[in-house]
Amino acid sequence: MLVVKKFGGSSVADKERIFNVAKRCIEDYEKGNQVVVVLSAMGKTTDGLIAKAHEINPNPPKRELDMLLATGEQVSVALMSMAMNVLGVPSVSLNAAQVAMHTSSAYGMAKLKKIDTERIQHELEAKKIVIITGFQGINKYDDLTTLGRGGSDTTAVALAAALHADACEIYTDVDGVYTADPRIVPDARKLLEVSYDEMLEFASLGAKVLHNRSVEMAKRYGVQLVVRSSLNREEGTIVKEETKLERMLVSGVAADKNVARISVIGVKNEPGVAFKIFNLLAKHNINVDIIIQSIGREERKDISFTVAKQDLKETMELLNEHRDGITAQNVTSEEDVAKLSIIGAGMTSNPGVAAKMFEALYNADINIKMIATSEIRITVLIHEEDVNRAMRTVHDAFDLAD
Amino acid sequence: MLVVKKFGGSSVADKERIFNVAKRCIEDYEKGNQVVVVLSAMGKTTDGLIAKAHEINPNPPKRELDMLLATGEQVSVALMSMAMNVLGVPSVSLNAAQVAMHTSSAYGMAKLKKIDTERIQHELEAKKIVIITGFQGINKYDDLTTLGRGGSDTTAVALAAALHADACEIYTDVDGVYTADPRIVPDARKLLEVSYDEMLEFASLGAKVLHNRSVEMAKRYGVQLVVRSSLNREEGTIVKEETKLERMLVSGVAADKNVARISVIGVKNEPGVAFKIFNLLAKHNINVDIIIQSIGREERKDISFTVAKQDLKETMELLNEHRDGITAQNVTSEEDVAKLSIIGAGMTSNPGVAAKMFEALYNADINIKMIATSEIRITVLIHEEDVNRAMRTVHDAFDLAD
Repeated sequence: MLVVKKFGGSSVADKERIFNVAKRCIEDYEKGNQVVVVLSAMGKTTDGLIAKAHEINPNPPKRELDMLLATGEQVSVALMSMAMNVLGVPSVSLNAAQVAMHTSSAYGMAKLKKIDTERIQHELEAKKIVIITGFQGINKYDDLTTLGRGGSDTTAVALAAALHADACEIYTDVDGVYTADPRIVPDARKLLEVSYDEMLEFASLGAKVLHNRSVEMAKRYGVQLVVRSSLNREEGTIVKEETKLERMLVSGVAADKNVARISVIGVKNEPGVAFKIFNLLAKHNINVDIIIQSIGREERKDISFTVAKQDLKETMELLNEHRDGITAQNVTSEEDVAKLSIIGAGMTSNPGVAAKMFEALYNADINIKMIATSEIRITVLIHEEDVNRAMRTVHDAFDLAD
Repeated sequence: MLVVKKFGGSSVADKERIFNVAKRCIEDYEKGNQVVVVLSAMGKTTDGLIAKAHEINPNPPKRELDMLLATGEQVSVALMSMAMNVLGVPSVSLNAAQVAMHTSSAYGMAKLKKIDTERIQHELEAKKIVIITGFQGINKYDDLTTLGRGGSDTTAVALAAALHADACEIYTDVDGVYTADPRIVPDARKLLEVSYDEMLEFASLGAKVLHNRSVEMAKRYGVQLVVRSSLNREEGTIVKEETKLERMLVSGVAADKNVARISVIGVKNEPGVAFKIFNLLAKHNINVDIIIQSIGREERKDISFTVAKQDLKETMELLNEHRDGITAQNVTSEEDVAKLSIIGAGMTSNPGVAAKMFEALYNADINIKMIATSEIRITVLIHEEDVNRAMRTVHDAFDLAD
């Protein structure tokens, strides 16, 4: 059996944790498995390197920033191989160039294109544990690239796909995907499995267990993932395509407090207005989340949407600056809001799910400011101070507890 | 004109020094020169990485240690390129794999075999300053290697040879090669030029301006070096083949306090004894310096030699342990000794040089314990506490002052 195991930066932050990870990998190896390990940079190394770069150059060339950042994972893999050596197990560390991990040329946000597996296969056949730098690649110029946020997860999934691995285990500091945040909902239950699509919704709603890119890639190549903790031996959550025949309507509840609401009031009810607004924000790299457009009354209509809290100020400045261009009569905003969502592949065919959620919130006297839905998710925007109470209420309403 | 400029770790130890180096390189660039910069790891980075490795594994696999250490220079070159970008000059950083710098497979002490110049030439033609990691290479497995002590100097000289550079400048924290250590001999004079062979003797005698490997390579490929300070604008010392027609008999005086004397007393006067002694030490990686063997009287003779002070204890243990095998009657040692040498390509044809040195020491009442000579060097072993006084006396005797 060939296993790909990925450990994040906090799992290799110091000597003790490095040995902890080494031992877990060796357990698999000693069962006769072929083991490929993907590592992030230790602890806060990447942040430290970025700070160092900014000290020199507030706007460093992206190529050079990637050249700098790529050293972080190289340190991790070399030290891990040294740890395995102490423990008496043969291993070899490989960086992105040695593998080679071919990516697009977009520094800082490169996409994996192709992974050469020859060197890895060769080392596995020589009975070595193969330890590979996550997060990085090389482009057609032989220059180092990095994959952006969630990059190491993506590396692991891509390796699992390229090597036709039997398992791809993503180790994090939580031990799986829960029906709700256990810090807020004490009786939240760990899910044994979720579908790729549910996982995507969980991730996009602030439950930062896996980054969406890695889940999307896992879905595309049918790589079954296991999310589990590097700190304990609990069974994790399996992320895969097939779902049980009789599944729960709702898999879990997720909240995201990092959100602000903006309404563009009284724009002309004519084609192109929405385009102008969101093109303006996209050009300034502002990500927009839920978008709601009222039905136009006569000549004017309102468009509301949410942005991350840190983007609120810039968004308001931009919209006010271009108020004439976007034909707005007014722009309003609200910062103390939060998103609450229920997620579940089962809800598509069950029209009563939304009603049940709204009822639970009504019974708890929680006002709903906006509503947005997808196939497997229902999201409401509520007052920020209500969000923990709302999460518990909705979690109860759907009987998600242990 | 194509210039290779090499800066050591202390020259790029912090932001201020990085910009200082960047500006010096840009001055050359703006004169219309093509500029290749070779950098070491910042400050004490390499020592820090070695400590990190030893924390994990007291005896780390050399391949993995090189994988780890190679990150040090990669950080330097990326930050340097960012600094040049701030200063408005196009540049690109390249690591050993990107160049590529082909070496032997001997991790930790690899030898440069061949440097591909295509990428460098391409970047120079694109009017960029090219910033290259010193100290590292890749072997035939595509694995990273390091060149050992003085590695970055060697990288610079090898690049200068491969690129047929017009100049190779080695920047250090001293501003050239002096007739003696200016901290001990205040009126010591900076030499405008020395020959490769003289430089080799200076380096091997503790005047750590250039490492011998880089000088040997410069000599082999006829690369003319300039040694100068990164901290000031002084003219440095030129290291080259040709020497002036009328040159000084003696170029300078050098001392080395890191030395201990060992005498193996009364070994059998038969073939193979010296081999047994020095083979024993070589197998334990102990470097032996001056060796003197007394003319055998009857059946027994004495062999004396020097080692670095930190090797004294182990050497004595080894020799005592194998006393029977090496047929020694006794082994003695002396720790508070030092080497003093005069160096000069002119002395070969001047038999009076040695006598003049010995006379100066006699006049100063300094006892000579051992004498060793080469074509261009005369070394004496003296009491350690006499060495500074001896250096000044000999410096005076040969009129080396300003």
